[in-house]
Amino acid sequence: MIRKTRLFTPGPTPLLPAAQFAMAAADIHHRTPEFRALYTRVLAQLKEFVGTKNDVIILSSSGSGAMEASVSNLTSPGDRVLVLSAGKFGERWSGLCKAFGCEVDLVSKPYGQTFDLDEVKAALKPETRCVFLQANETSTGARHDVEAISKLLKDQKSEALLIVDGITGLGTSTLDMDAWGVDVLIGGSQKAVMIPPGLSYLAVSDRAWDRMEATHNPRYYFDLRKERKNAKNGESAYTPAVALIAALGAALDWIAAQADGNLVEGRKKLVDNAETIAAMTRAAVEAMGFKLFTNSPGAAATAVLAPEGVDSGLIVKELKSRFAAIITNGQGEMKGQIFRIAHLGFFDYMDTIALIGALEQVVVKSLPQLGAKFGDGLIAAQKVYAERTAAK
Amino acid sequence: MIRKTRLFTPGPTPLLPAAQFAMAAADIHHRTPEFRALYTRVLAQLKEFVGTKNDVIILSSSGSGAMEASVSNLTSPGDRVLVLSAGKFGERWSGLCKAFGCEVDLVSKPYGQTFDLDEVKAALKPETRCVFLQANETSTGARHDVEAISKLLKDQKSEALLIVDGITGLGTSTLDMDAWGVDVLIGGSQKAVMIPPGLSYLAVSDRAWDRMEATHNPRYYFDLRKERKNAKNGESAYTPAVALIAALGAALDWIAAQADGNLVEGRKKLVDNAETIAAMTRAAVEAMGFKLFTNSPGAAATAVLAPEGVDSGLIVKELKSRFAAIITNGQGEMKGQIFRIAHLGFFDYMDTIALIGALEQVVVKSLPQLGAKFGDGLIAAQKVYAERTAAK
Repeated sequence: MIRKTRLFTPGPTPLLPAAQFAMAAADIHHRTPEFRALYTRVLAQLKEFVGTKNDVIILSSSGSGAMEASVSNLTSPGDRVLVLSAGKFGERWSGLCKAFGCEVDLVSKPYGQTFDLDEVKAALKPETRCVFLQANETSTGARHDVEAISKLLKDQKSEALLIVDGITGLGTSTLDMDAWGVDVLIGGSQKAVMIPPGLSYLAVSDRAWDRMEATHNPRYYFDLRKERKNAKNGESAYTPAVALIAALGAALDWIAAQADGNLVEGRKKLVDNAETIAAMTRAAVEAMGFKLFTNSPGAAATAVLAPEGVDSGLIVKELKSRFAAIITNGQGEMKGQIFRIAHLGFFDYMDTIALIGALEQVVVKSLPQLGAKFGDGLIAAQKVYAERTAAK
Repeated sequence: MIRKTRLFTPGPTPLLPAAQFAMAAADIHHRTPEFRALYTRVLAQLKEFVGTKNDVIILSSSGSGAMEASVSNLTSPGDRVLVLSAGKFGERWSGLCKAFGCEVDLVSKPYGQTFDLDEVKAALKPETRCVFLQANETSTGARHDVEAISKLLKDQKSEALLIVDGITGLGTSTLDMDAWGVDVLIGGSQKAVMIPPGLSYLAVSDRAWDRMEATHNPRYYFDLRKERKNAKNGESAYTPAVALIAALGAALDWIAAQADGNLVEGRKKLVDNAETIAAMTRAAVEAMGFKLFTNSPGAAATAVLAPEGVDSGLIVKELKSRFAAIITNGQGEMKGQIFRIAHLGFFDYMDTIALIGALEQVVVKSLPQLGAKFGDGLIAAQKVYAERTAAK
C-alpha cells in the first residue's frame, strides 16, 4: 500500500502550503526596505495573533531560546523565582533558572497533573521576582490554568512577573495576556502557526520591559531590549531566519483569511478547530478502551496511556510502519508509558478521522486486551464531530 | 473548522511531492544533452511502466490528444472501424473516428454496463480496420475486459488493430499489451502517474507502426512516426512540456522505489493499492445503503448511484463545502445521477478512510432515507482493509 508520511506530532506540525511557497520564494536580504516592510507587518500581525497590545519580539531560535531570553533578561543572579512544574517543560524552566543563578522555589506535580492553587499560594513569597509556568505542558498534554494563577498573583499583590510558555498553548487555548496580566507570553513557529521550527516569539509587558532596566544576568544574542530597538526600525539585531519570517507572514495571512481577514477571529477559529479535533480524539481513544493521561487535557495534543504492560512505543511504531502516521511517545519519565497525538495547527477533520481509523487498525490487530472492535473509536469521533458542528 | 482541499477525482489526481519538486526545478532547454538524457530515460521507464517491448511515444497533450493520434495515424477516410462504447469516453472514440472520416460500426451499451462478447463478435467484420475501446470507462467506473476482446480478435483472425484507451486503466488494472496483442495502449499524466495534466503517452505495436505507412488521414502535431524518429535522438518533434516530463521521471522513480527500484513490481503495487482502496470504498458505500452504478467495477474510481429522487450533485457539493473533499458528479447523461470517488494514483489508507468518514457525515445528516448510522460505512471499510492486508 502507498503510505503518505503525515505528522501528528505536537511540533513540528504539518506545514501550511501557502507558508511553504512563501518560504521558497523568500530570496531577500535582511537589511533592505523589502525585508523591513515584511518584518514590520509580521510583528504587527503577531500582536493580533497573540492578542495583546504589548510589543512582540521575534527571535531566530527555537522556543527554548525565548524561554532562556525570559530568564536571562528578567532575572539577576540570586533572584528568588517560583517555577510551576508538572512535566518535561516545567523542568526546563527550573534548569534555565538555575543556569542563570536564580534561587528556585518549586511547585512540582507528577507528570499529567496540573497545579493546586493553594500550593501555589503557599509557595509564593513576597520576594518572589518571577513565576514561570506552561500554558500547556506538551510532554503530558495537560492544560494549566493561567488565568487562575494570574488572578492569584494579583490577589496576593505579588510583584512577581508572570512568564508563560505558550508554545503549544497559543492557538489552542484562550490566553488573554493583557486582561489577565501575563508579563511574558512565548510562542514557537513549528506549532499552531504551521511553519517549520526556527523562530520563537514573545510578547512582553511594560512591567517586564521596566524590570529589564535593572536586571543583570548576561545576555547578548537574546537581548530583548536590543531586539525591541531594532524592531522599531523593521529589523532584527542579528541575521534573522528570513524565509521563516516570510512563511510566518503567509501563515498569519492565511489564519486571517479564515475569518474574512480578521486575524483575531481567525485565531479563535484555530482554537475552535483544535478543540473539536481534540474532543474527537479523546472520545475515540476512550471508546477504544484507552485511558487519558491527564485529567486536565488541553487541545494542543492528547496524551494517552498505553494499556498495562504494553510499551507505548509499540503503538507509535505500528502507526508509523503500517500507516506512515507519525505520533510521539512520552518524553522524559513518561517514555514507553504514553503516546501523544497532536491537534495544534494545520489539522482538519479528514486528518483526524484517518488517524483514528489507523489507530483502530492497530488496536484491533495488536492490542486485543482492550477488547475494542472496528467502529468503536470511529463512531465516537463521528458523533462528537456531528454534535460540535451541528450548531454552526 | 480547517478544511484542506483534497482531490478524490479520477484525474487530475493528487500530486506526488517528489514530482512537484522535480517540476519546480525543471529549468532546462529541450534541445540540450541534459534534456535528451532525461527524455531518453523517461521513455525507457514508461515502457516498463506500461509493461511492453513496444516503443512508447509521449505527446504534450491531454489523453484525448493521444486518442486523436491513434485515429489520425491509423485510419484513412472511409475505413471501417468498430467502436465499443458504454460511456462518455466510448462516445469520444466515435466522435474522433467520424471526424476523421471513418465508417463507424458501434457496439453501444448503456452507461455503467460492459460489453457482451457475442455482440462484439457479431459487429466485427472482415473489413474492420480498427477496434477502439476503453480499458476503464472513467465516466461510469466500469472496467472492460480487454483481454477477452483481444482474444476474440485473434480467434476471429481479424486484421483489425486493437486500440485501447488505458488512460485510467493503466496503473489500476493488469493490461498485458504484448501478451494479449493490443496494438495501441494510451495513458495520461494526471492519472495513476500522479503528475498534473498535460502529457499523454502511447505504446504502439509493430503492426500499428506498419499500418501507418499506408494510412492517409491528415496529422501533423500528432504525427507518431515523426515523434518516434525524434525520440530515438532523445527529443520531441515540437517543444515538449519539459517540467511535466521531469515530473514524470520523478514519479516513475518513486513508483520503482516502492519495490526496491523495480518499476514492474512497483506498477503492480500501484494496481494492488488501487484495488484495496476501491474494495474499501465499495464495501463502505454499499454498507451505507448506496448502490454501485456498474456491475463491472474497476479500481480507478467507484461510481455510486445517488438514492432515488436525490441529485448526486448534493453529495458532491456537501463533501466540498463541509470537508473540502472534491469528488466528481456523473458526466454526460449520468450527471445528477451518480457520484464518483477516485482511487488511481497517490491515495492511501488514510485518504480513503477519511473520505468514507466524511461521506458518512453527509449521509447521516442529509440522506436519512438511506437509514445509515455512524460506523456503517467505516466499519465495512476497516474490515476490508484488515482482511486484504492481513496476509501481507
